[in-house]
Amino acid sequence: MSTHRIYLERIPDGDQALVVGGEAHHALRVKRLVTGDAAELIDGRGTIAAARIRETHKRGQSWEVALDIVSRVTAPRPTPALHVLASAPKGDRLHDMIAGLSQVGAASWSPLLSARTIAEPREAKMERLSHVAVESLKQCGRPWLLEILPAMALADAASRPRVIVADGSGTPYRHAAGLDHTLLIGPEGGWTSDELAVLRAAGATIASFGAHTMRTETAAVVAAGIVLHASLAG
Amino acid sequence: MSTHRIYLERIPDGDQALVVGGEAHHALRVKRLVTGDAAELIDGRGTIAAARIRETHKRGQSWEVALDIVSRVTAPRPTPALHVLASAPKGDRLHDMIAGLSQVGAASWSPLLSARTIAEPREAKMERLSHVAVESLKQCGRPWLLEILPAMALADAASRPRVIVADGSGTPYRHAAGLDHTLLIGPEGGWTSDELAVLRAAGATIASFGAHTMRTETAAVVAAGIVLHASLAG
Repeated sequence: MSTHRIYLERIPDGDQALVVGGEAHHALRVKRLVTGDAAELIDGRGTIAAARIRETHKRGQSWEVALDIVSRVTAPRPTPALHVLASAPKGDRLHDMIAGLSQVGAASWSPLLSARTIAEPREAKMERLSHVAVESLKQCGRPWLLEILPAMALADAASRPRVIVADGSGTPYRHAAGLDHTLLIGPEGGWTSDELAVLRAAGATIASFGAHTMRTETAAVVAAGIVLHASLAG
Repeated sequence: MSTHRIYLERIPDGDQALVVGGEAHHALRVKRLVTGDAAELIDGRGTIAAARIRETHKRGQSWEVALDIVSRVTAPRPTPALHVLASAPKGDRLHDMIAGLSQVGAASWSPLLSARTIAEPREAKMERLSHVAVESLKQCGRPWLLEILPAMALADAASRPRVIVADGSGTPYRHAAGLDHTLLIGPEGGWTSDELAVLRAAGATIASFGAHTMRTETAAVVAAGIVLHASLAG
């Protein structure tokens, strides 16, 4: 099995690190790591440090893990970046979407506010999504955290450069130049014809990503996977 | 909103159809359809019939919907077909995988039994998966049902023609000739090196579908989406 990964928002520059709170509890009480075990520290901002547990303590009800940092690598922010704007589906499906976007390597997600968007996620929900992104970071080993950004109205999204709009009316997506792109995924009811007209007028590419209607979270993850795979395959 | 779809395993050849059981209950009590309303009958074997509700009854505790068939189209089985073999992830994630494979247009799914596969789904679970495939058929409007097939051992899977194996060690997937393919997705722990050697020796293509490690259900849906999209994009 792979080395246990611990998320640490700021990995110290020196050769020692201290992990407290939920991550320490998880490492010691769920994963049962002990002194001498290897672990990887990951900050979600490009740095992954190989470390070894020096000692563990319990202070009151809280666990602490002290580690020696053995080596570190810093990965640059992936480029080209893919920013995904999609209306938030309900409940667990939003969590699935965030975890999926993280695994396929999207740079960020913003809730997209369009004519048929049902609800803008509340602040508390957005915070839980950051937690989903951190858990996925640890699982899939990406060095940069999926950014969860504030909601954006369609008119503002349309004015971004290099916009790709997922819609069944488009031709199958084809890989374009190697710069950052913004991918727009419609809500369950789809785009209105006015919205599509505005997006076309703004110069967006309308592209399809499959033969059938997909649910928002499936469409977002599959379309992002196709765009990112195309940029890897060149 | 789109026309309500009703799954009917055998659509009669004539101009009348009768829907009973859960589908009738759902149409009348959840969707609140009434006499005169339009509906689409879909059999999951290529036929979609436009229909109109002629009358509704309640017999004992059971609802019935009698419909007039207005017109019908029959779509041939999609080709090239993509058969997906993947170890079953636990719980809801297996349902998500089946729904996702249905939406991206895979032809079939079989549980794959490999060295690190944790569990083969029981018969009762396989039956519930058929229900997930039917629900997805109605949502995404594909004319052919995703087939849920019996489990297959890796050795048998390796002997199929045109096998694509998803693995991070491969180069990014590139579209190949337009014939049916079999896509193999490993379990959470990945393939063993012995398994990869057997698959390579059998002539399988080892391909990657993203930069990071994906969970089984994400990998299956995204990789199937990439393969099927490539065959649409030509």
